This record gives sequence, structure tokens and C-alpha cells, in this order.
Amino acid sequence: MKTKSGFVSLVGAGPGDPQLLTRAALTRLRRADLVLFDALVSPETVALAKRARCFSVGKRAGRPSMRQETIHALMIRSARRGQRVVRLKGGDPFVFGRGGEEALALRAAGVPFEVIPGISASIAAPALAGIPVTHRGVASGFAVVSGHAASAYEPVLDSLRPGTLTLVMLMAVGAQQAIGAALLARGWPSTTPAALAFGASSDESETWTGTIAELAAGNGPGLEDRPGTLIIGDVVGLRAALSDDARARDEGEMTAAIGRNSWL
Amino acid sequence: MKTKSGFVSLVGAGPGDPQLLTRAALTRLRRADLVLFDALVSPETVALAKRARCFSVGKRAGRPSMRQETIHALMIRSARRGQRVVRLKGGDPFVFGRGGEEALALRAAGVPFEVIPGISASIAAPALAGIPVTHRGVASGFAVVSGHAASAYEPVLDSLRPGTLTLVMLMAVGAQQAIGAALLARGWPSTTPAALAFGASSDESETWTGTIAELAAGNGPGLEDRPGTLIIGDVVGLRAALSDDARARDEGEMTAAIGRNSWL
Repeated sequence: MKTKSGFVSLVGAGPGDPQLLTRAALTRLRRADLVLFDALVSPETVALAKRARCFSVGKRAGRPSMRQETIHALMIRSARRGQRVVRLKGGDPFVFGRGGEEALALRAAGVPFEVIPGISASIAAPALAGIPVTHRGVASGFAVVSGHAASAYEPVLDSLRPGTLTLVMLMAVGAQQAIGAALLARGWPSTTPAALAFGASSDESETWTGTIAELAAGNGPGLEDRPGTLIIGDVVGLRAALSDDARARDEGEMTAAIGRNSWL
Repeated sequence: MKTKSGFVSLVGAGPGDPQLLTRAALTRLRRADLVLFDALVSPETVALAKRARCFSVGKRAGRPSMRQETIHALMIRSARRGQRVVRLKGGDPFVFGRGGEEALALRAAGVPFEVIPGISASIAAPALAGIPVTHRGVASGFAVVSGHAASAYEPVLDSLRPGTLTLVMLMAVGAQQAIGAALLARGWPSTTPAALAFGASSDESETWTGTIAELAAGNGPGLEDRPGTLIIGDVVGLRAALSDDARARDEGEMTAAIGRNSWL
């Protein structure tokens, strides 16, 4: 890295709680001149960039957001002016974050960059709800897919035999009923446990548990406006034993997630 | 959390570089009285626990390690004596870390605990080698499985249609040839790109790239003694454009991974 030239860091912000940022991410934010952040990144995290100009570039389902090409152009122009740019993305930059596209654009422009992995909600949202994505004798692997568009998740569901892997679907709240129906149509047993974890690692975290039949019948938790992570598989059953909240034992109820209060 | 009683934190240490620890993990390590760490956790990370007694409890393929029940008993006994215990696990506690089993044992013993997610090598090892696990138009999801035992990965491979998802296999170096053969036997095209990322985020990081046919023929990188992550799928082809090292363009060569030098 030449000291005269600028530099772009593609940084994963993790699931929301600034305590779940990496030390490397914190260093980048504190040194940054410019921060371009996704809508899902928490305000507390953005606030750590004390000397930077900070701009939201959107990237939330159903909301207006900056065009991808505009984000590329902003990063490239600012770096060429010698600035330290942080592109701050929810979760991990390479898990449905279009981080690969941004890295390719920077490479094509000859702008030096680095990738700082972040805690992905695909693993942390289940964990903070008391659900391990793998567990000996229950699930020996997991698959992660976006629930945002049927055109993306249907081919993935077509390629998975029901029940072997834990299935984690990000951005799946809006399509919860369609996803439940898609799983039933592909032979998943109607009693397959399902959980929807909202606001992982935030003060407003809540978890719904039920079955894929309930999702398909439109009896899921609603809350289409909130970002959430859907977890499908027998590991959901471990939540009753692992969650702090006894109400988790009552299937179908909304309950507060574990873990949040103890670490602040 | 009662101040008189002890407490256990099940903490993910991330892929190795202490800069990829979360802020929450660092706080736990600095306050800890006792740290029980896996063999794969880097010495630099363990060294951050300045006031704690630190013990390796093994957990590396083919090496002697403490029995799981002994780990449970140690955590429970120390917490009951009022100690702050950190159970420090490579990557994330709930991705093949037996974190779920340890959490269940603590819950059964009535010992208060928390789970601090960590950066999983399943996402970060590919990323630091220049390989995004998802990429628009290339892979709309990924599956993660352990390559440690055929009895665990074969049912997972049986349940996946070839080619739709990026396949990430942790602890897969020793079985690389058997895995290549298992994929060919299940109809994966012989030219399917494969990468083995060694020592992600460490000074000794290296990446081999080739095809699953090369793995099956025993022409993989060897190095059975080193921990490594296997990545299968077309996203491996992005490495040539995303890696700093031009040698990555030469298929089959060992190359240094991106990202490490720039952030220290």
C-alpha cells in the first residue's frame, strides 16, 4: 500500500452489536476518512468512525438504495483522492453482500483494497437465539441461502434433499409463507422445526419458533418489515434447552433471545 | 449474572489472527480467570488473557486431546468456585465446535453461560484466499460440512445436487483425495474448481487451486498435517481476479493469500 494513494477496506460489521465487530474493523473505522454503510449496519457501529464522513448507501429489501455502480464510482473516486475508505457491510462482505462485485470493480480500477471478514448473521443469528447450526447427532452441516428472491432460493431448495443439513435463510421474513410452501412442495416433513430470529444481537431481539407447516399456512410471526433470519431443521429443537427464556419451550411464542444482556 | 457465582463464556476465537477477534471476545479474555483453549487457537490469541491460567484441551485431528466430559467437568467446577471461565474455540463455537454440547452440559449443571460468536473459517478462509462464498450469477448460496469423517460428510454429499451451492469443507486436508473421489462418484463435473486454503489469516497462509479431478487423482497439495479449508465450486475462479498474487492465475500452484499483510 502506497502512503500517497488511498485505500478501500471492505469491512464486515457483523450482526449489529458493536461489541461483535472485529478489532481489525474497529481500527479501520477509527482511521477512515469516508464510510459508506449499508442500511442494516447499526448506528452505534457507524458512530465509531469519529473522523469520517459517513453515508448510507441503502441495501435493504424494499427500500430505495444507491445503485451498485454509483457505490463503485464513489469508492474509486475517493480512494484516488488519497482517502481511506471503509465500505461497511452488514454481517460478512462475501455473504450476499455483493462484496465480490465491489472487489472486482476496485481491482479493475487499480485501487488497492483489503477484505475484513465479519460475523455473518447466518451463523450468529441462530447462535444468539440458542440454536447451534451444527450439533453432533442432529446436523452435520448447514446450507445458507438468501430468502429475498424466489428466483435465487428455489434452485437451491431444488438441489437439497430434505432434512440432512440445517437450512439458514437470510432476508427471509417477507417470503416466510412462500418458503414454507416451497419446502412442503419439495417433500420436507410438515413438522420440520422452524425459527425466525429478529434483530440478532440488538436490544430488540426476538425469536419465533414453530414448524414449516405453520409458516406455509400463514401462521408465522408476521413482522415483514423487520430483518430476520430463518432457521429450518431439528437443531431448532435445542433452543428450548439452550435459551435463557423458559417461554422458548412454548412453541409458537415470541421470546427474547439469549446472550444479549450478559455481555454489555 | 450473580457476582458471587462464576460464569462461563463460550467464545469463538475466529480463524487465527488476533485482529479478527471480536471486541466482546477480547473483553472476556482480559477478564478471565481460566481459559480452556483448542489446539487450533493461535498462541497470540491465548496470550491476550493476561491474568488467566490457560490450558490447551486439544481438539485437533489426530492429536491427543482432553475428553469432552473432562472439559465439561473442568468448566463446571471452576465456575462453581466463582471463576470467570473462557472456553476459547477456533472459529465459531457452534460450527463443528461442539459448543452446543458444552452449552447443554452447563445448562444441565445450572452454571450461567453466554455464547460469543466468532468469525468462522467456513466463510473467512475462502474470503482471505480471494474467494467469495456467494457471488451474483455464480453461487446463490453455500453449504458447510466437516471433512474430518466420511461418515459425516458422505450423507451431506448425498443430499446435495452437484454444482448449485458453493461447498465448503472444514478439516478436509487429510481426506482431500477421498473427497475428490466422492464428489466425482456423485456426478460433480471433473473440471469443478477446487481450492485448499491453509493457515487462513496467519503468516503462513497459502492456497492451492485446481480441480476435483486433481484431488481425486492424488494431485492435491498434500500437507496433510496442516489444517485447511476446502472450497468447491465456480466461485474459486474469482480468485484469479481477486487475489493480490498474480501466481494465483497459474492453476495448481501454491500462492500466498490476500489480505494478511495490509492490516497489521
